Amino acid sequence: MIAKTPEPPYYAVIFTSVRTDVAEGYGDMAIRMVELAEQQPGFLGAESARNAEGVALGITVSYWESLEAIRNWKRHAEHQLAQQIGRERWYERYKTRICRVERDYDFEQ
Amino acid sequence: MIAKTPEPPYYAVIFTSVRTDVAEGYGDMAIRMVELAEQQPGFLGAESARNAEGVALGITVSYWESLEAIRNWKRHAEHQLAQQIGRERWYERYKTRICRVERDYDFEQ
Repeated sequence: MIAKTPEPPYYAVIFTSVRTDVAEGYGDMAIRMVELAEQQPGFLGAESARNAEGVALGITVSYWESLEAIRNWKRHAEHQLAQQIGRERWYERYKTRICRVERDYDFEQ
Repeated sequence: MIAKTPEPPYYAVIFTSVRTDVAEGYGDMAIRMVELAEQQPGFLGAESARNAEGVALGITVSYWESLEAIRNWKRHAEHQLAQQIGRERWYERYKTRICRVERDYDFEQ
């Protein structure tokens, strides 16, 4: 769902990835990483989508209170291991962008 | 695909949306808006993904040289019309976040 984030400024990590065709272990890891991220200090929410057709491009955006919270999450031991296995097995390529959210606005029917 | 963006800093618009079940006209509009965005001054690239299962959450991230380029795109007449029709027909809810990309890094097999 759309993450309920506080008033800006806050921070976002945009993780855009193209998967390999190795599925084994990926789903469990993805679920576990969301659970683990939710427990980290400064975590504000996350959103994730992946195309089912064509190139399997996926975008996950996680939101954080500070750059320090993002750094700590990047260095978290279990997350580090998932990143390493990800590079070896699940991801053909990815790009991570660290951003400061300056403004936001909403629409709801 | 993953957008080829220049060295930071640059800007990102994260558009997260939940669709209604109205499909008519949506695909054509989405294609047209990407074409039109690509023609705008300061446009750097875009990435898009939507879940096929569960809540149809979609994430589109577009990248821009400046906040002014983002403002101009938001106000573009044809884009304004698409936004209006979007609120009336295609989107149940959405959130737009304007960000400054501070850092990025890549991985490729």
